[in-house]
Amino acid sequence: MYASPIARLVQQLGKLPGIGEKTAARLAFHILRASAEDAAALAAAIVEVRQKIRFCSTCCDLTEADPCAICRDQRRDGTLVCVVAQPQDLVAIERAGGYRGRYHVLHGVLSPLDGVGPDDLRIPELLRRCGDGSVAEAIGEVILATSPSVEGEATAVYLAKLLRPLGVRCSRIATGVPIGGELEYADQVTLARAIDGRREM
Amino acid sequence: MYASPIARLVQQLGKLPGIGEKTAARLAFHILRASAEDAAALAAAIVEVRQKIRFCSTCCDLTEADPCAICRDQRRDGTLVCVVAQPQDLVAIERAGGYRGRYHVLHGVLSPLDGVGPDDLRIPELLRRCGDGSVAEAIGEVILATSPSVEGEATAVYLAKLLRPLGVRCSRIATGVPIGGELEYADQVTLARAIDGRREM
Repeated sequence: MYASPIARLVQQLGKLPGIGEKTAARLAFHILRASAEDAAALAAAIVEVRQKIRFCSTCCDLTEADPCAICRDQRRDGTLVCVVAQPQDLVAIERAGGYRGRYHVLHGVLSPLDGVGPDDLRIPELLRRCGDGSVAEAIGEVILATSPSVEGEATAVYLAKLLRPLGVRCSRIATGVPIGGELEYADQVTLARAIDGRREM
Repeated sequence: MYASPIARLVQQLGKLPGIGEKTAARLAFHILRASAEDAAALAAAIVEVRQKIRFCSTCCDLTEADPCAICRDQRRDGTLVCVVAQPQDLVAIERAGGYRGRYHVLHGVLSPLDGVGPDDLRIPELLRRCGDGSVAEAIGEVILATSPSVEGEATAVYLAKLLRPLGVRCSRIATGVPIGGELEYADQVTLARAIDGRREM
């Protein structure tokens, strides 16, 4: 129904997650109306990201230079590794500030129903990092920072079982009522966990 | 925080309508994980749409060939022109089937609050089409098919005032309770209009 270049763009945009046919058409018409520079910049950014981005050989984060900026940063504590599911989670923790250790990105969580097993995640790389005596700094503690969802919890438990025999201390991020949250509106599981996990003050 | 090619892609995607920073990041990571062909096809489709799409010199729709396929189609009734706000509206009417006249795309509706006046729309082109004796078929009726919103109604009223002196019959699409809709859930204005616009049966 659309002219074929528009139809092709709508089809390609429709392959993006959460973008249905109507949203794809809206985006396509926006691209048609946007400045020539903006349209060219978007196309160039897509090409560039595919050409330049690779996995960091140490932490498996997405990076332009290998090793990545965090793995290269000598001021960071190399004995402490925070394991996250996705690169976005790493960015969220960096934004929160305060954490000065290194990271390991799994690129997913265990999810048997979706066909995601241990071999589909960057677990061998994590075990190599922790078990390998050749690394300059021995890893003393791994913070398992997957989400407190069913899959995230299962992944954390699975990793802890593999890491402890290597002599690595494993910890899990705290769960509870979020800062600024109202007790009244917290769900039952969160509240029960917050009470179980209470700390002396 | 992201590697710079990712940050640039997130920034460019964030310029699209309805795409905030988090959605832009999600789309960027999808593009990173998608097949090389899909990523290249998306970039190519953006470049292609900007190179190949122009306005139809007759109906102002977006088209690859000028005049567009509908304006070229000799089986269509050239005496009947349906005026729509956007190319998407034209596609919606074509999908509904049944309409065999031609179109005119305004590329917007009058909206003084947003700074959109008559000069920003393809109104001169419409008046030329209707008033110009040089065209092969004289336009007998114009269907004003802008949305039944405040701006759409105002645009229709404005156009009817300009078109009637040119000897063109103006009509407005029907408003009322949508097919399959429940009277109970119809809003008051729609219901009042549906009763006002009742038809003998």
